[in-house]
Amino acid sequence: MELNNPYYAVIFTSITTEEDKGYLEMVHQMESLAKSQTGFLGFESARGQMGISVSYWDSLGAIAIWKMQADHLFAQKKGREEWYKWYKVRICLVEREYEFGNG
Amino acid sequence: MELNNPYYAVIFTSITTEEDKGYLEMVHQMESLAKSQTGFLGFESARGQMGISVSYWDSLGAIAIWKMQADHLFAQKKGREEWYKWYKVRICLVEREYEFGNG
Repeated sequence: MELNNPYYAVIFTSITTEEDKGYLEMVHQMESLAKSQTGFLGFESARGQMGISVSYWDSLGAIAIWKMQADHLFAQKKGREEWYKWYKVRICLVEREYEFGNG
Repeated sequence: MELNNPYYAVIFTSITTEEDKGYLEMVHQMESLAKSQTGFLGFESARGQMGISVSYWDSLGAIAIWKMQADHLFAQKKGREEWYKWYKVRICLVEREYEFGNG
C-alpha cells in the first residue's frame, strides 16, 4: 500500500575480504549503535556469498548522524576499506510496502 | 552521491517455512524471470535466519509487470503463503548511492 509517511532504507551490500571474529563483533556493535539512535526504525541482515544489511530510518538527518558514528567506529578499529573487498550503499525512500504473516 | 536518474529497489525480506529443493529452484526461476525483463537493472540476494533479496528496476511499471509474472509463477507451483512464514515487500526510490572497490 502507498505510505502516507514514507521513511528511508539504507541498503548496504558488501563482499568482505575475510570473515574474522573482529569483523562480526564490529557488525554487532554497528547494529547496537544504530538501535540506540534517534530516528532508527529497524535493521535486517543476511549473509551468503554477499552480505546485505538494510537499516530503516525516519529521516535523512538520522542517516547522516548514523553514518558519522559508523565511520568513527570503523576508524577506531581499522578502515572500512580493509574489511571490505567491495561495498555499495544506497539511500532509498520507501514509498510502498506490504506484508504477510507474523515476523 | 545524489542521482540524476533515480531508480527503484524492491526489498523482499522473508522467513521461509522450510528450505526444500522446490523452493530454491523457484527462487532461481524468479531471478531468471526478472533478468529477462524490460526495465530490470540488477538482483542481489543473501540468506541467514532471514532471507533478503533486492531487485532493481528502472520504473514502477516494470515492477508491476514483474510482480504479475512472479504471482503467476507462484500460482503454478504453490501459493506464496505456503512457502513463507512471513515476508515483507518494500518498494523504494533509490535517491543516492556510493560504492567502494570492484564488485
